Amino acid sequence: MRGLNVAVLGSAAGGGVPQWNCRCPVCTLVWAGDARVEARTQSSIAVSADGERWLLINASPDLRQQILATPLLHPSKGARHSPIEAVALTNADVDHLAGLLVLRERQPLTVFATGQTHDILSDNPVFDVLSRDVVKRSVMRLNEAIDTGFGLVIRPFAVPGKVALFMEQSDAVRIGDVTETTIGLEIAAHGKRLVYIPGCATVDASVRKEASGADLLLYDGTTYTDDEMPKLGLSEKTAHRMGHTPMTGIGGSLSAFDGLSIGQKAYIHINNTNPVLIDGSDECQAVQAAGWTITRDGMVFSL
Amino acid sequence: MRGLNVAVLGSAAGGGVPQWNCRCPVCTLVWAGDARVEARTQSSIAVSADGERWLLINASPDLRQQILATPLLHPSKGARHSPIEAVALTNADVDHLAGLLVLRERQPLTVFATGQTHDILSDNPVFDVLSRDVVKRSVMRLNEAIDTGFGLVIRPFAVPGKVALFMEQSDAVRIGDVTETTIGLEIAAHGKRLVYIPGCATVDASVRKEASGADLLLYDGTTYTDDEMPKLGLSEKTAHRMGHTPMTGIGGSLSAFDGLSIGQKAYIHINNTNPVLIDGSDECQAVQAAGWTITRDGMVFSL
Repeated sequence: MRGLNVAVLGSAAGGGVPQWNCRCPVCTLVWAGDARVEARTQSSIAVSADGERWLLINASPDLRQQILATPLLHPSKGARHSPIEAVALTNADVDHLAGLLVLRERQPLTVFATGQTHDILSDNPVFDVLSRDVVKRSVMRLNEAIDTGFGLVIRPFAVPGKVALFMEQSDAVRIGDVTETTIGLEIAAHGKRLVYIPGCATVDASVRKEASGADLLLYDGTTYTDDEMPKLGLSEKTAHRMGHTPMTGIGGSLSAFDGLSIGQKAYIHINNTNPVLIDGSDECQAVQAAGWTITRDGMVFSL
Repeated sequence: MRGLNVAVLGSAAGGGVPQWNCRCPVCTLVWAGDARVEARTQSSIAVSADGERWLLINASPDLRQQILATPLLHPSKGARHSPIEAVALTNADVDHLAGLLVLRERQPLTVFATGQTHDILSDNPVFDVLSRDVVKRSVMRLNEAIDTGFGLVIRPFAVPGKVALFMEQSDAVRIGDVTETTIGLEIAAHGKRLVYIPGCATVDASVRKEASGADLLLYDGTTYTDDEMPKLGLSEKTAHRMGHTPMTGIGGSLSAFDGLSIGQKAYIHINNTNPVLIDGSDECQAVQAAGWTITRDGMVFSL
């Protein structure tokens, strides 16, 4: 498995598909067992240059089940072992960091995150269950490449985002700030390049520049339209207000990367309300016709 | 379903069976797909007096998967709904509270816990993802019964315990203190009585008194022997040091409730190292011969 191996552990946005308390049209189909919609866990990928040592990108609340479902991530040596060498976090959303609590039991590990995200971990003593004497907390600086030591080079870059929901102080939260709060990651190995951006408020010139030339772009596929949640009466928040780019409409991600040389484009972090999750739906077909893949749990990309 | 209904959502101790990084004898069988050991998620039960409105006892890291696996807990009305009305916590262990992070998405809910456990939640801003304007935090006082308003009466009582692992300040942690830190719960409905004690350092006279007369006792089944973890070379900690009662040996729980009138006795919170998890093992047979049930995920008790 020499190459840049990317395993999709979870392809859904926060809450997963179905979401525990939701009966939106997509969730209703899943609860009813309709074969057109596949259940999905919350977004996370595992990346490896050799198929033996893996980097997780984000640790979803479903991480324990994702590991069980992925034989490559099962322990295989001695009494205690894991092929998971490190975790890199793109922000401090609950759906990206709750899975750290799964990685307890004194397993050596490195957690890569920006200083701001590490501060949030430190402000929550519950994460001390990952003992600091065995789990290293490594600070990523924007645009500085880090060699993981197991064949992958990670480079973080800021993307337009917003603070995590649980850190919002008021409704006057700033959307689209380009800071350490929300990052994308470039992961390189054997001359191949993955660009991972599961949450991003706008595809601006800088995001386009990062995506350009990627062998694989995995991008924020939260909603199909900006007003998807309000229209369903589920929330007053638009995609933009949640810090995400809708697929369609002005600035929609579906066409925002047009004209760039990108090997494969695929959506990840897809919200349960997004009709592209219904196989064969008009929206699903439109996305595929535009050259995008809709990720599923268990999908593997070998670059 | 009028009665006292108890659904076992998860029967394993912290880490589950198998544990993500473990190759102890039991986990090794599960990784290999051996039919003698059933996989188990981390301990949690749901209790209802009418089969429609449910109280969770503890919120395990596996809660999303547990809800998906339990049709009684699926949403059934309107756009957003859950049969889960409330959660009661017996302590602040990660395997008992991480699942609160699953219960986000502005679903009205009550969280019952002692003042001390609520303080720990408050000290971790990540739990603010359960907005305080929709999720009520209700303080339980030792030995004071609370009517949940949906047919169940809860009464918390202190049991010998210890602080949560992530709160331990040093190795000189006090074991067996009888405080708000670790509680058992009595849940009563329709004249029936469940006593739930998933973590307890010793069966003392007070624990025996609480268990006496219960229609169902669900008790801490973490390890079979006190030195189970050290003997396997997995940890230096005995069951006692972890705040749990071993099943066997001096003070072992297997015989500690002898002579009391208890309808059914069952073990829950069973660690992945415990050989009773292997169907047909000597230890499994010994436990069953002593009149105890070894719980499995999905098991239902109708009292």
